[in-house]
Amino acid sequence: MTLQIANLAGDGIGPEVVDQSFAVLDAVAPAVGLDYARTDFPFSAAHFLDTGHVLTDEDIATLRGYDAIMLGAVGGQPNDPRLAGGVIEKGILLKLRFDMDQYINLRPVKLYPGIDTPLKDKTSKEIDFVCVRENTEDLYCGLGGIMRKGTPHEVANQTMVATRHGVERCVRYAFETAKARKAAGYRGHLTLVHKTNVLNFAGETWLRTFNEVAEQYPEIETGYHHVDACCMFMVAKPEVYDVVVVPNMFGDIITDLGAAIAGGMGIASSGNLNPDGTGPSMFEPVHGSAPDIAGQNIANPIAAIDSMGLLLREVGRIKGNDAAVKAGDKIGAAVQTVTPNFAGKSLDRSGYSTTEIGQMVIDVL
Amino acid sequence: MTLQIANLAGDGIGPEVVDQSFAVLDAVAPAVGLDYARTDFPFSAAHFLDTGHVLTDEDIATLRGYDAIMLGAVGGQPNDPRLAGGVIEKGILLKLRFDMDQYINLRPVKLYPGIDTPLKDKTSKEIDFVCVRENTEDLYCGLGGIMRKGTPHEVANQTMVATRHGVERCVRYAFETAKARKAAGYRGHLTLVHKTNVLNFAGETWLRTFNEVAEQYPEIETGYHHVDACCMFMVAKPEVYDVVVVPNMFGDIITDLGAAIAGGMGIASSGNLNPDGTGPSMFEPVHGSAPDIAGQNIANPIAAIDSMGLLLREVGRIKGNDAAVKAGDKIGAAVQTVTPNFAGKSLDRSGYSTTEIGQMVIDVL
Ligand SMILES: CC(C)[C@H](C(=O)O)[C@@H](O)C(=O)O
Ligand SMILES: CC(C)[C@H](C(=O)O)[C@@H](O)C(=O)O
Repeated sequence: MTLQIANLAGDGIGPEVVDQSFAVLDAVAPAVGLDYARTDFPFSAAHFLDTGHVLTDEDIATLRGYDAIMLGAVGGQPNDPRLAGGVIEKGILLKLRFDMDQYINLRPVKLYPGIDTPLKDKTSKEIDFVCVRENTEDLYCGLGGIMRKGTPHEVANQTMVATRHGVERCVRYAFETAKARKAAGYRGHLTLVHKTNVLNFAGETWLRTFNEVAEQYPEIETGYHHVDACCMFMVAKPEVYDVVVVPNMFGDIITDLGAAIAGGMGIASSGNLNPDGTGPSMFEPVHGSAPDIAGQNIANPIAAIDSMGLLLREVGRIKGNDAAVKAGDKIGAAVQTVTPNFAGKSLDRSGYSTTEIGQMVIDVL
Repeated sequence: MTLQIANLAGDGIGPEVVDQSFAVLDAVAPAVGLDYARTDFPFSAAHFLDTGHVLTDEDIATLRGYDAIMLGAVGGQPNDPRLAGGVIEKGILLKLRFDMDQYINLRPVKLYPGIDTPLKDKTSKEIDFVCVRENTEDLYCGLGGIMRKGTPHEVANQTMVATRHGVERCVRYAFETAKARKAAGYRGHLTLVHKTNVLNFAGETWLRTFNEVAEQYPEIETGYHHVDACCMFMVAKPEVYDVVVVPNMFGDIITDLGAAIAGGMGIASSGNLNPDGTGPSMFEPVHGSAPDIAGQNIANPIAAIDSMGLLLREVGRIKGNDAAVKAGDKIGAAVQTVTPNFAGKSLDRSGYSTTEIGQMVIDVL
């Protein structure tokens, strides 16, 4: 079976870095017997400025036929008024997450060898966990409004929604993740992060669901942290975490903090998963489109390459494609063989070109 | 005029640490000509377990007559089921914030001399800013509900509310804070932290209000960060911040992260301000009641003492009581003369007793 990958290279440095991720895929695919096809799509800020469309219904229908989406980076010049109000983020990233029911945002927080963390005395041993962020509910649902706009009596509302359906499938996925990690030699510990002492309604649904599902996983130890305390732990004692499950908005916050402690945007990868396979899953380096350095062959493609590894592993599992899983494992291992080359250097001014870094990974494979 | 302070010493280590803060106040008051009165109140988790009341309407009416409230720490044993669901937090802390219209939560993020930060290569020069957190709106308003509870179709809602009234007074206070800091030699820079690319309604009210008020403060430079990016900056580049203004829920999160980078709970102080003086302002060390070490004279009172300094400075300003401001300044300076004694030690196992540390500050004064 051919793994169908839709390539949304996007804006700025997106195309250069995803090109390297596909070059790496080309290097590994034959060895593991993986058959794949890449189809390029133009959706991006630039495409929106050209055509007036972010993603049309037809675009969505087309993308639905793919197994996976590789997203480079979307976003134009920071202060372009035509892109204000999150039109690209909402029209591409959030639209795909919601329409494709990618209900898990998977963000590994792992300090790779040679990568510098801003934290004192913390190593790869202490910074090694996975965040399972719910990706289709919460404050991201878009419900709300503004009344008496522009008057002294203006009131804006924004609704956080948590459903049993949405929470339970996410929590189950997190327990399964903890179980798989336990089988792989990790602790098998799952922490729920919320703010139940203030968010009594949404928090109750989360906590009750978490506790009920926990009974079906007696081998997994569980814990609970308020989101504010979680941020303290992440900088003072990140080793308390093995797997974290968290609603969408708090997940957005703590995973960026997670990226920061694991070396920053330059290295972080993430997956938007539809674990049921009813639509494609989407993978992206966490970094932005960096228009200021685009087209110069100096952007670091390591996060995009690692995201390709994540794509192959996760979509391989969802689709039962063992060759893809094998390819993903190989790429993941190769990335961690290459990262020591960045020791003592900043990821975005490493002195290596985009293509040189891609070649380093290929040479390891 | 006599400064009337209501002392809510609270649970666990609360009483011991606030006692030291009053001892320090006693040491400084005569020298600056400050007249004050302390009245003790029993409100706490223990009081709730004894009487079934957190704060009654009469309690609120009584407290309303005071200039300031000193809060030690409230909270019982972590897993006591009688205290589940945030009954103490909601019934005391949040109740006072809302009923007394303490619409500013002021949290200095400053690395004191001798205090250890978990961040590499960061010193008191880089970690020195103030968070102005809105304290009476947002997800803290308590609006929401759960429908079809306990069924597979359960839906929980929690409403984030932003009003022009609430946002504008907070934003104005933040601009005034930046102006005062500029006069004191700081940069005079104010960053709004929100998530406008997703929270389009609440975010719009915040951003529009911020931009409108900014026009009246041309001398203050402004900036905007999404809350997720803010967390990255706080660990990677905290020096970008001078004053930060932020809605309640995001403020809860980033100020705990701020406390973490400035040395942790053991040192952080905070003020809940009613800048209009229509009710008392309330001050608290950020740490909890730590029931496990209560009553042993080993808790570190430095955060409580620093909170007393903050109380005197802020309430002194609100009430036009110069002696109080002077006393607050002296305590603040004394605390920073004492903190080098903790260099290389952990704040909560410094080897000094509670009373010894109080005496150190008194000796400096
Ligand atoms: C761009 C933005 C809408 C998005 C989010 O908030 O989810 C981003 O921060 C992320 O985490 O992928
Ligand atoms: C105890 C809790 C309700 C409170 C809050 O969320 O505001 C605390 O975290 C704080 O920051 O003062």
